[in-house]
Formats: sequence, C-alpha cells, structure tokens
Amino acid sequence: MREDAKLLQELLEGNLGRTRNFLKKLRPAEVGHLIETSLPQQRNLVWQLVQKEKRGEVLLFVGEDVRQQLIETMDMDQLSAAFADLDDDDLADLLQELPDRILEEYLAGLETVDRNRLESLLSYPEDSAGGLMNPEIISVRPDTSVDVVKRLLRRKEPLDHLEFVYVTNSKSRLLGALPVTRLINAEGEANAGDLIDRAPATLEVTATAREVTRKFEDLGRVEIAVIDAGKILLGRITFDDVFDLIREQGEQQRVSFAGGDSGELDIYAGVRSSFLSRGMWLGINLATAFLAAAVIGLFEHTIQQVVALAVLMPVVASMGGIAGTQTLTIMVRGYAKGQISRHNIVWLLWRELRLGLINGIIWALVVGLIASFWYKDFAIGMVIAAAMIINLCLAGLIGVFLPAGLRAIKIDPAVSGGVILTTFTDVCGFITFLGLATLLFV
Amino acid sequence: MREDAKLLQELLEGNLGRTRNFLKKLRPAEVGHLIETSLPQQRNLVWQLVQKEKRGEVLLFVGEDVRQQLIETMDMDQLSAAFADLDDDDLADLLQELPDRILEEYLAGLETVDRNRLESLLSYPEDSAGGLMNPEIISVRPDTSVDVVKRLLRRKEPLDHLEFVYVTNSKSRLLGALPVTRLINAEGEANAGDLIDRAPATLEVTATAREVTRKFEDLGRVEIAVIDAGKILLGRITFDDVFDLIREQGEQQRVSFAGGDSGELDIYAGVRSSFLSRGMWLGINLATAFLAAAVIGLFEHTIQQVVALAVLMPVVASMGGIAGTQTLTIMVRGYAKGQISRHNIVWLLWRELRLGLINGIIWALVVGLIASFWYKDFAIGMVIAAAMIINLCLAGLIGVFLPAGLRAIKIDPAVSGGVILTTFTDVCGFITFLGLATLLFV
Repeated sequence: MREDAKLLQELLEGNLGRTRNFLKKLRPAEVGHLIETSLPQQRNLVWQLVQKEKRGEVLLFVGEDVRQQLIETMDMDQLSAAFADLDDDDLADLLQELPDRILEEYLAGLETVDRNRLESLLSYPEDSAGGLMNPEIISVRPDTSVDVVKRLLRRKEPLDHLEFVYVTNSKSRLLGALPVTRLINAEGEANAGDLIDRAPATLEVTATAREVTRKFEDLGRVEIAVIDAGKILLGRITFDDVFDLIREQGEQQRVSFAGGDSGELDIYAGVRSSFLSRGMWLGINLATAFLAAAVIGLFEHTIQQVVALAVLMPVVASMGGIAGTQTLTIMVRGYAKGQISRHNIVWLLWRELRLGLINGIIWALVVGLIASFWYKDFAIGMVIAAAMIINLCLAGLIGVFLPAGLRAIKIDPAVSGGVILTTFTDVCGFITFLGLATLLFV
Repeated sequence: MREDAKLLQELLEGNLGRTRNFLKKLRPAEVGHLIETSLPQQRNLVWQLVQKEKRGEVLLFVGEDVRQQLIETMDMDQLSAAFADLDDDDLADLLQELPDRILEEYLAGLETVDRNRLESLLSYPEDSAGGLMNPEIISVRPDTSVDVVKRLLRRKEPLDHLEFVYVTNSKSRLLGALPVTRLINAEGEANAGDLIDRAPATLEVTATAREVTRKFEDLGRVEIAVIDAGKILLGRITFDDVFDLIREQGEQQRVSFAGGDSGELDIYAGVRSSFLSRGMWLGINLATAFLAAAVIGLFEHTIQQVVALAVLMPVVASMGGIAGTQTLTIMVRGYAKGQISRHNIVWLLWRELRLGLINGIIWALVVGLIASFWYKDFAIGMVIAAAMIINLCLAGLIGVFLPAGLRAIKIDPAVSGGVILTTFTDVCGFITFLGLATLLFV
C-alpha cells in the first residue's frame, strides 16, 4: 500500500496519462485507499483521473467525509455514469448521503421501475436490515425442476456470493432456501421444493444493525434472507456488507474522551473542517473545566492556608478519573454485547464498590505515605488517603450508573460518557479532598 | 437474548434437567453468550449442563478470560470430547491457549497423523494467515473431469462455505481456483483445469492479521487461499474467521485511557482478577499524577501569593489534554489504516500547529475574559490566555509525534498513548501557566 502511494506521488509529478493507466489497473478499494491517503490539494486531481465507470465503486471504499468532498465535484452526468453499475444496496447507501436536491434530480432521471425500486429501498433506515439488504435475489416456486433452476442460474448475470436460491409461494412468502452447491449433484427432474432447508436463517426488515451483525457472527453465514412481518421475501444481506458494520461497532465499544467520532473521520481534512468538528468538544470541556475550577474556588481560603493542597489535589481527581473510566469502559462494552440485565446490575454495582474500596485503601496507603513524607505532615497524608478511598468508591458507582442513565435518555455513553464521567470524578475529588482539609485545618 | 438469560435464570432455580434440554436447543453462539452473561457462581453449573460434544463450539464464542475459566474445570477426557468435532483452525486457536503441560498431554493422546497436522498449524503465529487458516481444502489436478470433481464433492463431508475447488500440480503448487457454482452448468467431460480462474486471490502464510482483514474487506471474498513463498497451497481462510479480527481491530483504532484491554475482558470477572488487571493502570497513573504534582510543587511560592492560580490551573491542563487526545485519536486511526507516510507527516504537523494556534487564540480569548472578570484582574486573564495558546500548540505537536515515537519503540499508541499524552499536556500546562505567572507576579 505504501509503495502504491509513493508511486502515485511520482507519477502525479510526471505524466498524468501514465497516472491514469496506473489507477486503471488498481482495484476500487486500492484507489479509494490512495485517495484517502492523498493530501487535500491532490485528491481532486487523482479523482479526475479515475475512470468514470469505476468511480461509483471507489466511493464505497472511502470514509463519509471524503465521499462528500468527491461527490461535490461531480455533475449529474458524472454521477449517473458512476452509479450505473452499482448494486442496489450500495447505490442506496450512496444516495442516502446526497443532498436532497441532487437526489431528486438523479431519481427523476431514472426509468420508473428503477426509481420505484430505489425509492422503496431508501424508505428504510440506513442502519436497519432494510437499509442494508439487496433486493436482487433469485427465487423460484417449489415445483420448479432442478434443471430449470440451473438454466435460470446460467441465464442470469451471476449474483455475488450466491449461496441460496430462495423458494417462495405465489405470494412471495418464503418457504425455504436451496443451497446452490446442492444443485451440483441433484437430479435434473427433482423439484426445488424437495431440496430446500425449510427453516433458513432470516432477518426481519426492521432488525437493527446490531441484530444483523450478531446474527452473521453467530451463524457465520454468507448470506441471510430479509423478510417482512408476513414472511414475504424482500431481499438478502451478504457477509461483505457486514464487515464495515462490525468495524464501526468495535470502535463504538470503546469510551471516547475528546469526541472522536466513529470511523468516518478524514485524517487529511483541512484546517476549517477539523476546527469545526473538534471545537465543540473543546467548548464542552471548557465548561466542565470551569465547573471544576468553581468547586476549587469554594476552597480558596483553605488553599491559601495550606498550599500543599493545591499541589496534591490533581492526584486525587486523576485517580478517580482513571478508576471511573475503567468501570465505564467495561459497562459500555457490556451493554454493546447485550451482557447487562437488570438482574445483574446489582452484582456489578456491588463488585465495583468492593473494588473501589480495595483499590482505594491500597492507593490511599501509598499516596498517604508519600504525601506525609513530602510535607512532613501526617495530617495531610490522612486527608488525602481518606479522600482517595471515598473518591475511588464514588468513581465505581458513577461508572456503573452513568451509562445506564445516559442510555435511558438516549445518549450514547461511548461518545459522551468519558467527558461527563471525568467531570463528576474531578468535582467529587476536589470536594472530598478540599472539604476534608477544610474541616480539619481551618 | 435478554429473554434467554431470564429463562435460564428461572430454569436454573427450578429443574436442572429442563435447563439441560433448553441449552441443547440453543446454538453454540447463544450458549456462549448466556455463559458470558451469567454471574461467576452460576457459570460452572451452566457449563456442566452443556452437552459434551457441544462444548468445543461454545468455547469459540466466549472471550479469552471466560474460556480460560471454563477450560480449567475440564479434565482430559472432557477436553478430548469437546475438541473432537472442531475444525482444525478453530481447534488450533483453542489449543494455543492451553497451558503447555495440558497441551502436550492432549497432543500425545492423538493419532500421529492428527498430531503432526496440528503441530504444524500450531507452529504459525496465532495472528498470521498461517495461524488463521484451515488446512482442510478440496484440491484436484488440472486434468480431473468435472464429473469426478462432482463425485468428490458428493463423497466428501461438505466443507463450510465452500466457494472454490483448488487446482494444483503434482507438487501441490496452486494453479487456479474453480468456483463451485461454475460446476452447476459445466459439461461433465470438461477438465477442471479449463474452468479455473488462473489468478485467484491468495494470502502468503506469513501475512499479518491486518493484511488478512484488509484483503477480505477490499475483495469481499468468501474464502482466500493461503500459500507459501513457493506458491504451495497450504489451506484457506474463510470470511467468518475474519469477523472477530475486524471487531478487535476496530477497538484498537480508538485511544484508550484507563488501559482497557481489547475485546477479551470478562464483564463478570471476580474482584480479584479485576483488581489485578486494573491495578497496574492505577499505579501508572499515580506515578504520572505525582509527576504533575511535583511540577506544581515547584511553584508553591507563586501559588501562595496568587491563590487564583490554583483554581485556574486545571483548566489549562485539561484543555491541552482534550486537544492532544483529538490529535492522537486521528493519528492512531491513520496509522491503523495505513494512511500516514513520511511524506505526509509534515503536512499533518503543520495542520495541527495551525489548528492549535487558531483554537488556542479563540479559547484563550474566552478563558482570558472569564478569568479577568472572575478575579477582576486583567493580568491573570492575560497569563491564562497566553498559557492556553502555548499549551494547545504543544498538545498538537505531541499528538503527532507521540504515536510515531511509540511505534518506533514497538509500543501500541492506542493502549498507552492516552496516559502518556495527558501526562505531557498536564506538565506542559502547569509549567506554562504557573511559569508565566511566576515571571509576572513574583
């Protein structure tokens, strides 16, 4: 990959015709990767050199940010040419990201039958089985003979990753799935209906992306049929569409701090768009930092008398932040995997409390000793030790309750939980440490 | 899933025989999920109720921590029964996690041919194409007729996800791949060698896990052949083995703070094992927190004179931490996707510097104004504003250089980068803010 990028650089500085030929030989995924790895000023040039018919496929392999930029450079003719050879499900994904005006213009230019099919696909939420499925399937009636099915396969443009021919009744109701490999050794006169698996894996059209990936991971299937509530066969999802979803969900299982959005960030975004996407989180953090500062401000008088408190207070706060984050991380992953039930949360709470207590006591001893020796003052050591124990227990409790609370009000704890949690643990840390000190020293 | 967990609870409290029947009807993935969702005290009981032959499959669907626990409860007979029906690649994965003594005992109990095959699989690193591949393939000579290939498919136990029959020469050198769907309509007398794709997708046995997933994602293939440097066919990798890898890699693309390890954590781990896995990171954090405290300690004299500094100093440090983390997150993801080259890093550095400057100036104005009004002291506002600008620029630089540096010394920046980065930004923040204040006020 690295070599391709280097070669592209050299070609771009030399001969554009040769660059075009070089790009022609690469697969769409490789071209997409090269474009993502290019600096902004070169991207448009590279994009112009990609064959018109290949551009649709390439768009599938770049992140959302980059895709938007590339699409903005294209007029309607170029869009139509790029989209012409795409599968319906991929096409629907791209169309979903077009500005409304351009989407309408594009759809208006299609034949009625194509437009209707696409519009019905676009009516499903992007991250549902309906939004992910491809309506192109091969289905036959149960009394179709194997020979006819074979002829059908020969005539039809072969579908990608074809694992099943589906058998439906006259109302398109799914009766079963016939593995195509079973056709290899089947008698030509046999009926398709006699060879089918009668309970094939299916997904309801309303299933969420998480339900889709879980079913694929659990069953390890190449394709799964999509049906509606009445068992009418609507389409199929293939494993390759699931790869991206799984990667995104993996990223979502980790707690974010700085508002790093999920996988679609453009590493070579310009200053302006980076500024906008990051500025919000800096602003939020500023507000929470001033909240913590205000709490410290309440104890200015105490700090003035014992300046050692100012030196030691970040230690208490940061230990609480780490402990709380550890709990939060485990909870976020547990929710993502569906491992947390109401029944078990009491157990988790109890474990986190005990862990907070044990960790609190151990680190309190360490910190208390260091502080006592540093300031030759045993009282300071006692105060910081007590604050440490309290703060680590609180951190565990917050780590358990916060994600549950955020989920209840439909906020993703993986995205914003980190910032909220550290605000809590900072404030708790400062209050317990400076508060105890005030009681003792002032 | 939730309902299954609830039902299991009820059954466990009632009738163990009925629990056993309930578990019998579930798929291995579902049983694995139920075990992961069970509290520690129930896990062993549930595990005992799982059919002996099913246990091997179930082990594939639980995290590493839980798998270790379950395996520890089994004796050699139980292990042999559980492993009997597994595919070689899955079996090799499980064996890799056994303690050496038990592994040797298990291997010694096998027939020579099985032992040799497994030992050669175990010789590859777990996260390489060799460690991931399944050596069970169907391969024929080029002059084999289609009819013979078909008979071969009928006789052999059908392999999972069979996309290709491979064609090799007498030295097992890969000549091409014959899609099994092509057999459906092929003439019985045709030669396999005339129907093959001569440049099938392949992976070298030494390819890394990241190269494996990238190839699967780019090509969207059901299976890819694994060959050695001499093009000798060794096995194949199927897409379902790639699902797990992709999820793990997704998680690795996010910066961690509290040392949250990748996907194998057991949410219902007991207090003791949780304590050990989290304690290390609390200890590391304590060391870095005291480093920051020591820096503050240098300025005790200044803080004593202007106590407002103690109140405001966490604001400077935390803004630097967030800004640096944003840069670090983008860099970690860029490295994971292979998007960063030496040529481009200068551009990235320059962008981060400009972003740091712009964000610095904007937030410096805000913070400076708030601080000036709060303390009715314009000088304090000036000092914090200047410190903010310097710290945000430094944060951007550290965010770019740190992951590059950590990678050079073979440390994963996603795991430990967050802690190191915030140590830097804390120390820089305290030094610039308190240092400037000392120059001005003391």
